Amino acid sequence: MRVLGVDPGLTRCGLGTIEAEAGRRASLVDVRVARSSPHMSPDKRLLIIADEIDRVIEETKPDVMAVERVFAQDNVRSVMGTAQVAGIVLLAAARAGIPIEMHTPSEVKAAVTGSGRAGKQQVEAMVQRILRLRERPRPADAADSLAIAICQAWRGGTASLCAQPDRTQHGGAGTLPRAHGADLTPAQRMWANAERMSRRHGAVAPK
Amino acid sequence: MRVLGVDPGLTRCGLGTIEAEAGRRASLVDVRVARSSPHMSPDKRLLIIADEIDRVIEETKPDVMAVERVFAQDNVRSVMGTAQVAGIVLLAAARAGIPIEMHTPSEVKAAVTGSGRAGKQQVEAMVQRILRLRERPRPADAADSLAIAICQAWRGGTASLCAQPDRTQHGGAGTLPRAHGADLTPAQRMWANAERMSRRHGAVAPK
Repeated sequence: MRVLGVDPGLTRCGLGTIEAEAGRRASLVDVRVARSSPHMSPDKRLLIIADEIDRVIEETKPDVMAVERVFAQDNVRSVMGTAQVAGIVLLAAARAGIPIEMHTPSEVKAAVTGSGRAGKQQVEAMVQRILRLRERPRPADAADSLAIAICQAWRGGTASLCAQPDRTQHGGAGTLPRAHGADLTPAQRMWANAERMSRRHGAVAPK
Repeated sequence: MRVLGVDPGLTRCGLGTIEAEAGRRASLVDVRVARSSPHMSPDKRLLIIADEIDRVIEETKPDVMAVERVFAQDNVRSVMGTAQVAGIVLLAAARAGIPIEMHTPSEVKAAVTGSGRAGKQQVEAMVQRILRLRERPRPADAADSLAIAICQAWRGGTASLCAQPDRTQHGGAGTLPRAHGADLTPAQRMWANAERMSRRHGAVAPK
C-alpha cells in the first residue's frame, strides 16, 4: 500500500511517499519539499504548493494520504497559513478520490518512536531506520512527512490486524508478524515495540 | 467592476457578487451560501465548498475577489476549518487568475457602516441600503459576503481615487463623486460618510 504523508506548511511543505508492505516493512518511494517565498501573496503561495501536491499525487499514485492535524499555537499568523495548506491538501485528496486522514503531532511521534513526546532527533532516527535510509532525511519537513506516512501505514495496519484475528494468529504469508516474531529485522522490531509502547500508554487509540 | 466577496466557513460559506459602478453605486449580481454537513469528513466538505466557489466564479466572472481574514479565536476547532476554507478560496482565485485580497472583520464593518465595532444588524441594514435590496440578505453569511465585496469595492475605489486626483476634482463622467456631492442618493451619502468616518478613525488604512 502506497502512502503519501504531508507535513503542511506555506514556506516548506513536506511530501513523503512510502510503500508499506506486509511484515511491517516500509520503503521510501519519494520525498520532496514544496516551497514558497514569504514575499509572495498568500494566493500565489498556495498555488505553488497545490501544484506540487497534485504533481506528487500524479507521479507516485498513493492509495491513501495523511496530513498532520493543525492546532492553534502561539504563532497565530503562521498557524493560519499552515491550516490553509492543510485545507488545500484535503481538497487535493478529495479531488483525486484518495482517502485522507489527519493525525496529531503526538500520534505521529508515538507511532514512530513509541513516545508522543519524542524529540525531532528521535523521530528522524526512527524514520531513517524504518525506511533503511543511508542518511537522515533532510530538511526536518521531509522527515516529518515520512513519519506521518509511517503513522498512517501503521494505523491502517493495526486496523486490519484487529479485523482479522485468525490470520494474525496463524501468521501466514502476507500477514503482519507478531510484535515478538523472530523473523523481524532490528528496525521492524523497534517499530513493533514502538507500536506496543504507544498502545500501552494510550498515546494512540486504535481506530 | 465585478467583485466576489467570500465569508469563509465549512458549514456555511457566504458567496456574494456585486457590480460596483462609478458614483459609489453598487448592485447585487448574485448571492448564495455553500453548505456542507458536519457529519461528512473534512476533505469531502472542502470539496463541496470548493466546487461551489468554482461555480460562482464561472457564472459571475468576477474581476476581483475578497475573503475575510481569519484569526484564531476561542473556538479553535471551528477556526481551523474556517482557515482551511480561506485557503481553498485563495487557491480558487489563483487558479482562475483573479486577484484576491483579505480584509479583517473590523475593516469590513468600518467600510460598510463607518464603525469597526458595528453589530451584525447595522452591517446587514447598510448592505441592504447600499445594494437597494427589498429585504435584508439572509442568512447572515450571505450578508457578510456582500459586505466583504462592498469593502473590497470601496477600498479599490479609494485607491484609484487617490491615484487620479485631477479627474476627481473635475468630477467628470465615470469618476467617483465627492463625499459631499449633492448628486448622491441617501444610501450613497451614508456609504460616503461611513468611508469618511472610518478613515478619520483610522479603522481602515487606505491601500
